[in-house]
Amino acid sequence: MAEAERQTLAELGELGVLARIFPRLPKADATLLGPGDDAAVLAAPDGRYVVTTDMLIHGPDFRWEFSAPDDLGWKAAATNLSDVAAMGARPTALVVAIAAPQSTPVSVLEGVAEGLRSACAELAPGCGVVGGDLSTSDVFTIAVTAFGDLEGRRAVRRSGARPGDVVAVAGELGVAARGLRLLFERGREGGLRADAHAVGRQLRPMPPIGLGTVAADAGATAMMDVSDGLVLDARRLARASAVDLEFDGLTDDEAHGGEDHALLAAFPPDVALPDGFRRIGLVVPGAGRVLVGGAPVDELGGWDPYEQWDGRLS
Amino acid sequence: MAEAERQTLAELGELGVLARIFPRLPKADATLLGPGDDAAVLAAPDGRYVVTTDMLIHGPDFRWEFSAPDDLGWKAAATNLSDVAAMGARPTALVVAIAAPQSTPVSVLEGVAEGLRSACAELAPGCGVVGGDLSTSDVFTIAVTAFGDLEGRRAVRRSGARPGDVVAVAGELGVAARGLRLLFERGREGGLRADAHAVGRQLRPMPPIGLGTVAADAGATAMMDVSDGLVLDARRLARASAVDLEFDGLTDDEAHGGEDHALLAAFPPDVALPDGFRRIGLVVPGAGRVLVGGAPVDELGGWDPYEQWDGRLS
Repeated sequence: MAEAERQTLAELGELGVLARIFPRLPKADATLLGPGDDAAVLAAPDGRYVVTTDMLIHGPDFRWEFSAPDDLGWKAAATNLSDVAAMGARPTALVVAIAAPQSTPVSVLEGVAEGLRSACAELAPGCGVVGGDLSTSDVFTIAVTAFGDLEGRRAVRRSGARPGDVVAVAGELGVAARGLRLLFERGREGGLRADAHAVGRQLRPMPPIGLGTVAADAGATAMMDVSDGLVLDARRLARASAVDLEFDGLTDDEAHGGEDHALLAAFPPDVALPDGFRRIGLVVPGAGRVLVGGAPVDELGGWDPYEQWDGRLS
Repeated sequence: MAEAERQTLAELGELGVLARIFPRLPKADATLLGPGDDAAVLAAPDGRYVVTTDMLIHGPDFRWEFSAPDDLGWKAAATNLSDVAAMGARPTALVVAIAAPQSTPVSVLEGVAEGLRSACAELAPGCGVVGGDLSTSDVFTIAVTAFGDLEGRRAVRRSGARPGDVVAVAGELGVAARGLRLLFERGREGGLRADAHAVGRQLRPMPPIGLGTVAADAGATAMMDVSDGLVLDARRLARASAVDLEFDGLTDDEAHGGEDHALLAAFPPDVALPDGFRRIGLVVPGAGRVLVGGAPVDELGGWDPYEQWDGRLS
């Protein structure tokens, strides 16, 4: 490793680190005033803006033994972009706060910045980083807040599904969870050899960001990001809408795997599903359940970091 | 402690914790869609919005031996509100991501929420929390992103100071730093007995949030939040504006103490300083220096967590 890459945050100091990171960050088209002042200023031509925040912590959310720095930057961007897309909005900008051990080589932060840039370029062109914060912590932590523009659309909430609507998804289901199992069983290299696609999706999820606005324009009545597993998240949408969701069928992998960040949506029965969405069921009268063949799917399914991470795995 | 307060995050689970916190969070007037969906939607009647983010980490930024939970919530809000105010904007909303050890009693998060609410109510009425994220980490971490409305004003940057402008500050200087020294020397109780005002300001800073828009309306040419110490921050403003700042005089406490979150601003010479601002110097031609009696103040001064926190103090 070259000398410049081995330098740690402690050696470079905050300004030195920022000088190395800034050139690697993606620019946002909506920027009126970018990084370097007390705050950034962004355009909101719609008169509204969409906001979401999601933090990734070393241990429960990612591990350096599995993720390269640019994988982490990608994932931190992708998970937040997906929440913006799930409202029917176009992602416009991110702010990124990172806390890292002082012994961290600056090349790690450069890699994170490059991952943020790749994710914005490939998943949400025009979206960029407009501000951030850099702190020290023994636990590597990245907190991203993402913004979006509804461009005149109504926001698509979880609560709008109506009996008779078709339930559809865009994106993969269960693939990232299969990748995570392989990482735990075989490590990064062994996991990639066993199933490069699944492990790749766990490390660098490919949420169908562009389909969020497409679904909204097509008339989606409800939509959400599948981050904790299809059954668990579908039940949330069912409860918010006060309906049941009757699925056509479900494999175990589809039902319980989280982290693919598929889009789950409901469309009125007379709407042709937009390209990229496939039917998985029907909205029926009810009270917040997920059914297969008329029977409720059990309560389990999905990933709850509070219950399923015990700290010993890190 | 009552049973309900002793319950830990691990025992309650994420949804249980959120149910306990949500009722305590302040509501934001700008909310079009609040917490509970994939993202929030906020009003931006001005067609622009101001964004800043700042993370507080247990160890370098706060310690439970000094800060009560509501002190932490207050400080996390206040430091971010101050950055919004320093642009000449009115703070409208916050999103808050918290990562906490699983053994944390839920009463700690309730306290943080109450501190966020008090700070919004007292410093920026109408501002509230519109979203968040809750994760697990061995190091207690709170990342706040704050938003503001310029209400038709131009943003007041660091770069607009011109020779002949008057340099002024609103808020205290050096008080929070004195409080921090007392906390290290005597602990919370001993420090409060020695100087309740200074220790109180370190734990719960009182930035003059409302004066940000007042200064902008009065014609401030440049403004920033004094978070790292007057000399260090004044030098940043001087560099951004490509001028020198000639101070009328400086005590050591004023020069080097950070964390009061005073507002440092430059006003044209014909402007009457708004109530709450006091003159501390003059903008003169130059290249980014801070002068007293014509001589540059040395490079030291202010707080750099990268250089001054070594982890052993925690």
